Amino acid sequence: MKNWLIEQLMRLNMSDTLVRPEGFTREGYTDEETAAIAVFKAIAEELGLQVTEDAAGNVLARWEVEGGAAAVATGSHLDTVPNGGAFDGAAGVVCGLGAVKLLKEADYRPERPIEVICFRAEESSRFGVSTLGSKAMSGLLDPAIGSLEDQDGITIEQAVLSQGYNWQDMVAAKRKTEQLKCFVELHIEQGLRIIQHHKNYGVVQAVACPIRLSVTIAGKAGHTGTTPMDQRQDALVAVAPLISFVRETALQLNDAYETALVATVSKLVASPNSMNVIPQSVTAGIDIRSVDDALKMKMADAIRTECKRIEDAFRVTIAVDVLVDNPSIALDEKVANSLNEAGDHEAYLAHRMDSGAGHDVMNMAQVWPSGLIFIPCKDGLSHHPDEYATPDDLKMGVELLARFLVEATQDARKG
Amino acid sequence: MKNWLIEQLMRLNMSDTLVRPEGFTREGYTDEETAAIAVFKAIAEELGLQVTEDAAGNVLARWEVEGGAAAVATGSHLDTVPNGGAFDGAAGVVCGLGAVKLLKEADYRPERPIEVICFRAEESSRFGVSTLGSKAMSGLLDPAIGSLEDQDGITIEQAVLSQGYNWQDMVAAKRKTEQLKCFVELHIEQGLRIIQHHKNYGVVQAVACPIRLSVTIAGKAGHTGTTPMDQRQDALVAVAPLISFVRETALQLNDAYETALVATVSKLVASPNSMNVIPQSVTAGIDIRSVDDALKMKMADAIRTECKRIEDAFRVTIAVDVLVDNPSIALDEKVANSLNEAGDHEAYLAHRMDSGAGHDVMNMAQVWPSGLIFIPCKDGLSHHPDEYATPDDLKMGVELLARFLVEATQDARKG
Repeated sequence: MKNWLIEQLMRLNMSDTLVRPEGFTREGYTDEETAAIAVFKAIAEELGLQVTEDAAGNVLARWEVEGGAAAVATGSHLDTVPNGGAFDGAAGVVCGLGAVKLLKEADYRPERPIEVICFRAEESSRFGVSTLGSKAMSGLLDPAIGSLEDQDGITIEQAVLSQGYNWQDMVAAKRKTEQLKCFVELHIEQGLRIIQHHKNYGVVQAVACPIRLSVTIAGKAGHTGTTPMDQRQDALVAVAPLISFVRETALQLNDAYETALVATVSKLVASPNSMNVIPQSVTAGIDIRSVDDALKMKMADAIRTECKRIEDAFRVTIAVDVLVDNPSIALDEKVANSLNEAGDHEAYLAHRMDSGAGHDVMNMAQVWPSGLIFIPCKDGLSHHPDEYATPDDLKMGVELLARFLVEATQDARKG
Repeated sequence: MKNWLIEQLMRLNMSDTLVRPEGFTREGYTDEETAAIAVFKAIAEELGLQVTEDAAGNVLARWEVEGGAAAVATGSHLDTVPNGGAFDGAAGVVCGLGAVKLLKEADYRPERPIEVICFRAEESSRFGVSTLGSKAMSGLLDPAIGSLEDQDGITIEQAVLSQGYNWQDMVAAKRKTEQLKCFVELHIEQGLRIIQHHKNYGVVQAVACPIRLSVTIAGKAGHTGTTPMDQRQDALVAVAPLISFVRETALQLNDAYETALVATVSKLVASPNSMNVIPQSVTAGIDIRSVDDALKMKMADAIRTECKRIEDAFRVTIAVDVLVDNPSIALDEKVANSLNEAGDHEAYLAHRMDSGAGHDVMNMAQVWPSGLIFIPCKDGLSHHPDEYATPDDLKMGVELLARFLVEATQDARKG
């Protein structure tokens, strides 16, 4: 199984290695993502699954069962951030396929259909919004966001069309509630808490969804050589204390409260960004996450207050726009217990935890009872070329998913 | 004269207004610069000047005089920073042409040739190096810099070729010392000191040339949602105190020393600059200027020391590269006195001052006795769409240059 998993991961990443200096770049609704999804379809067909595609380009690989009962689904995504790793998303997809392979080889006969789903465009790096495919499937897609642009000025609508889909039709990807019984995603942890708690895997109880702010600072341009230091309105000088403030306030909130919070100035664009011109304007993107929505709000409010102080101190004007404000999502308690029991059955130790990152499961959870398994990743690294999960942990993921699928597909006649 | 000056400025800027929201973008060795130079040639020919071009694309508009004496030259440049103003460079070019017009209309007969020179590529915004044309004319061009790239990856060599010049041949633009007697540039002040001293124009004694540093901070990427605050190596968090430090240290040095110093973090590029990835690396460009070279060095040393502190405090590695380290240039005392006397003659008050910005004259001054006149500009603004000089001040510039040209071209038979 381990060799098979690594082989399929290399196929999906179109590489003969899973860690390389430049990482992997496969953004949502690009030819690169579509090419990886074609490999997913090929592997699914090799396993004897029925492959279909919905209006958003999500692919369903289905182990069909007579009788039309609601299916049990697992899955994740194949898109990456620019220069990301080979495992974020792909690990969940390949472990889902691996679980099907394991059960087929064991001649298991499910009483319900089993689906491995490959979602489109999970990462927010391209358009600033995440999980487009699972939003469509869950009926959560807002048609208004079709005009959002990537850094090359390509809109979501255009990107979707470039891969053969029609933005206006994508709402049709919404599935009926009765089609699925439940959904479980497997993902790399992207952190170190499992190992720090001396456990083997994580069972997630809640997903921390972000507040994202765009802070635009308007100062005044001028010649760097001729504008005296005390007569400047330098937008970059004004953003510097804000970057420090975000970090220091997040550290303080972690000391003061039980629930963890992270806050990051992750994007920064200065203009005109020219060696001999004082920076006229700066736009900073801030990402705030916690499963405690009130704590996120407290952080956002503190940022607004600091921006007022900076406006006065540096003679600039600051606009704070809310790009995203998603309440955090609680996952299904019964599914979580079942994922815990799967570990007991296979002799793996589960750590109950929250997820600091958003995942496709957060959309699925709003319609179907859903759960999320984390497997460890090396040094907690993710969205990074050095992202890595061991073959042993991938195999564990397959065994946990397979056990869950067995438990969840044995009740059709009873239920 | 005022109407003529404004008209020619509009022609050179290819606009029916001299202040517009987007400013003017005419970078060195682009089609835009070449088009403006074509207008310069046309105006010069309308004034009866002989127009030639050197191997670097600098244009000489010459009022020829029999006898072969060394010429008296004035001039400036027509390229701009991105979204710059209509006066930086163009004011000097048009006032030079205006002075010739004034003298021709007065039937003046110079005893030496007079030249109005239009230099190529004065601004450093495109390639990070400034005054390419006047460097070539003064024999100061370093052939090794031909491989420097702009932000689109176009090298200087390619840019030069795109406008019909050959980088390897550009050294041939070097003029013999005996061809010129002296050189005077007129430029907008790009500051407020003339007005603050209740004077009409500036006579510059020295030009502050920059030290420019490129500071590269290497941290570690990671998922913004899953990497705890206390386990990060965030390159943007690390650069924030450096930005504040540069400003605060420059303010302190201005308090402690007689000579002014300015220091600016003017460029900043963060990577991968993605909403859900912790900034892995940041490159900051720092521009340091003073006519006191030791003071510039003190500032650069302080930055290096602060970078060491930041390396330890934020667990990042920092490389500090010197892009430019040009000693400041003293201008010719006799030429300055003559520019002072021109003001006395025309009843304008001169303010003796230093230049915080580099200009073409700093290269010319290394070969020929050279001077620099500043005329006021509105609010001290430059490298900005609101850059503006009044028609009255432009006319004053014409009168000052004309008077200087008369004084400097009356000595050929005597000398």
